Amino acid sequence: VNIQPHEITAVILAAGSGSRLQGLTAKSPKPLIPLLGLTLLQRSILSCREVGIRNFAVVVGHRKTEIIPHLRQIQERYHISVQVVENPNWERGNGTSVSACAPYLSGPFLLLMSDHVFEPKILYGLMASGEESTTCSLLVDRRTDQIFDEEEATRVSLNGNMVTAIGKGLKRYDAVDTGFFLCQQELFDALETAMRKGDGTLSGGIQQLIQDNKVIALDIGNHFWFDIDTPEGLVHAKQCLLDRLSKPGEDGIISRLLNRALSRRITEWLVATNVSPNQITLVSFLMGLLAAFLFTVPGYLYSVLGGLTTQFASIVDGCDGEIARLKFQSSRFGAWFDTVLDRYCDVAIATAIIYREWTTHPSTNVWLLGILAISGFVLASYTKKEFSLRYEEKIPGGIVEKVTKRDLRFFAIFVGGMVNKPFEVMVLMGLISHAAIGWVLSSIGRREKWRG
Amino acid sequence: VNIQPHEITAVILAAGSGSRLQGLTAKSPKPLIPLLGLTLLQRSILSCREVGIRNFAVVVGHRKTEIIPHLRQIQERYHISVQVVENPNWERGNGTSVSACAPYLSGPFLLLMSDHVFEPKILYGLMASGEESTTCSLLVDRRTDQIFDEEEATRVSLNGNMVTAIGKGLKRYDAVDTGFFLCQQELFDALETAMRKGDGTLSGGIQQLIQDNKVIALDIGNHFWFDIDTPEGLVHAKQCLLDRLSKPGEDGIISRLLNRALSRRITEWLVATNVSPNQITLVSFLMGLLAAFLFTVPGYLYSVLGGLTTQFASIVDGCDGEIARLKFQSSRFGAWFDTVLDRYCDVAIATAIIYREWTTHPSTNVWLLGILAISGFVLASYTKKEFSLRYEEKIPGGIVEKVTKRDLRFFAIFVGGMVNKPFEVMVLMGLISHAAIGWVLSSIGRREKWRG
Repeated sequence: VNIQPHEITAVILAAGSGSRLQGLTAKSPKPLIPLLGLTLLQRSILSCREVGIRNFAVVVGHRKTEIIPHLRQIQERYHISVQVVENPNWERGNGTSVSACAPYLSGPFLLLMSDHVFEPKILYGLMASGEESTTCSLLVDRRTDQIFDEEEATRVSLNGNMVTAIGKGLKRYDAVDTGFFLCQQELFDALETAMRKGDGTLSGGIQQLIQDNKVIALDIGNHFWFDIDTPEGLVHAKQCLLDRLSKPGEDGIISRLLNRALSRRITEWLVATNVSPNQITLVSFLMGLLAAFLFTVPGYLYSVLGGLTTQFASIVDGCDGEIARLKFQSSRFGAWFDTVLDRYCDVAIATAIIYREWTTHPSTNVWLLGILAISGFVLASYTKKEFSLRYEEKIPGGIVEKVTKRDLRFFAIFVGGMVNKPFEVMVLMGLISHAAIGWVLSSIGRREKWRG
Repeated sequence: VNIQPHEITAVILAAGSGSRLQGLTAKSPKPLIPLLGLTLLQRSILSCREVGIRNFAVVVGHRKTEIIPHLRQIQERYHISVQVVENPNWERGNGTSVSACAPYLSGPFLLLMSDHVFEPKILYGLMASGEESTTCSLLVDRRTDQIFDEEEATRVSLNGNMVTAIGKGLKRYDAVDTGFFLCQQELFDALETAMRKGDGTLSGGIQQLIQDNKVIALDIGNHFWFDIDTPEGLVHAKQCLLDRLSKPGEDGIISRLLNRALSRRITEWLVATNVSPNQITLVSFLMGLLAAFLFTVPGYLYSVLGGLTTQFASIVDGCDGEIARLKFQSSRFGAWFDTVLDRYCDVAIATAIIYREWTTHPSTNVWLLGILAISGFVLASYTKKEFSLRYEEKIPGGIVEKVTKRDLRFFAIFVGGMVNKPFEVMVLMGLISHAAIGWVLSSIGRREKWRG
């Protein structure tokens, strides 16, 4: 039986001084250094919470009086249980910090460092490895050629998936220690043995277990993790987290090539504030309404302004999700709210463009073509959603999926606004949307021999 | 471990003469009597297929030369495996028909009669009971006061869930035999024993097993089943199947009170034809386009005709699903196709009504209000679908859900058409839709403390 996330405790070490981050630790101790809107410690805890972990033991030592109140806040705000473990001997090595947790733990537990950023899903594999209850599991990274700070990395020698040696000084090694463990109670005895030999480090304790063939290695594969030890490392970690904001399978071509590059910058600035993703959703919506208003004003200038504002609303529309992912604030409500408001925004901008055209070319056809465009936009999205509901999978990708994406539609309107032809471009996009719906209905219908 | 539907064989008895259905069996043998578009035998097989059963053994005897070709057709059309078992001794009792299957079966099997109509899901419980591999399970009905043809029912005495006696003549009884069994191989020995005693019926064999405490009863609960033995029974079964077409949790108020009563009649007529549900979807869509066209023609008469056609399209829109359910033709594609076309139909009728108003009251506001109404209709549906996708459940019901249903919207337009005010009524419905969307967003947002 697998270990369930809600049953396991994650031990997070936050007792050290982080001497190599000196410049940054003047203001706050290392675990409280802010990174994209969250402290390092907060990010570690929320990454664990993301996979369902609810119980934490956080070991503090150096500057504990600053860290403990922060932990109290986290506990309250995120509805998790945090056991604060004080380690007066923290200077004797991080092994003493693990030992200090012994009274609070029974059975296997996760062990991680407060200064590591990582993809939460790496913890699933680690928890699943807890079935074999006599060995510790260590997540290792075999990409030894890609290590940011190779000199400082803790090296690991392997024989198959058995760990045969661990240490910074290893000459020959197969992987590096990521600092993510699934530990058994045996670790406490091993740490004591190492301590008696004068080694107070966690690696020292692990080395004792290795001698009994009790440590297996789990490959982290291509997943992201990073150990922040220096100011340069902090900058690098930030870049990595921002780079990971695009949604490869989902982002349209304009998102990928243009919008994400700009929304990232806005997000980078916004995460440091208290603004919530849902508030950004509202702001993006209001920006869409502003674009709509601008389009209703006659004159070329307002066509340009309307187009620019439309494109800007499209860029800001990416920020809510980015902030939510960076700060672990994603919610079903947020996703629903954002999508519904996007459709309202589509309708508002389209109606404004129709009205604009109508004031200069007063023909009934303007309205009819306009309604054709509006219905194309909304129904293209509707058709995809309904497909997902019925088939319990995404609609098959391809050209149809690409031409009906919002980022492309808004970019087209932006270009249309620039050349004073927003209506023509919009109607064209609407026709393309209808054609795409017709194509996808008929192609899937043929596939399913629709006569039934 | 449960028995998996794709592993089990369903034995269907279709060898008897059905003497009490004489008038109807002049043209075709009893298993081939048509009922709402399917023969009785076909309906039995498809009901089993609905829960995942793919292997069948059908016992034929009386008029087998007519039944066998029909089985070949079914096998080919529905991609199932049908073993035809011929029983030359069918006149000696239905037990001989079961015995004839012995060479083709190993392990537990389902046993049912070709002249029973039933809710497919009753088979799940029966298959789950197959875990205890030494007993037969018999589905019984304790609603003894509601039996259609009580005289002819096979009666069952129970002690807890053990069957203690079975037979038509029982004076005291607790339930009636529904004719649905999960049987073990032991049944064949029991049938032989009964046969030696001169009893060739299935009940005779079951009685032998009862003496060894090897038959347990499973309650069919409130599920529907019916044994067709007489012309009156056939009419009754038809009524029951038609009555079960409404979707209690889903149908709107107009569907419930008006549309279903009419669509049932159309469905009753259409199921006998070769028309597929998807074709009805198309017809309903074209009817909507006709309604749209009628609304564009000036004059009160065309307002009435447009309204009537709209309401008729709404009624016919129920038929595709009804036919699909009656003939086991439901498909994900059909549901998707129907929903997308419904939205196109909504847009077409609404646009026509706007155009109608515009020709008599040429004000820009007509178009703006019209777009407001169209977007309200489409986005109300969109908001619900998107909620289902994100929350993986239906949007909470209540007034909001009720006022945005299509049956009500089209009924309102119908009434509007009758009084020559389709536009006013439509705009009102559109406003109500937007209010409903706003209300549901804000109430669920509050519930989820949306600031996050």
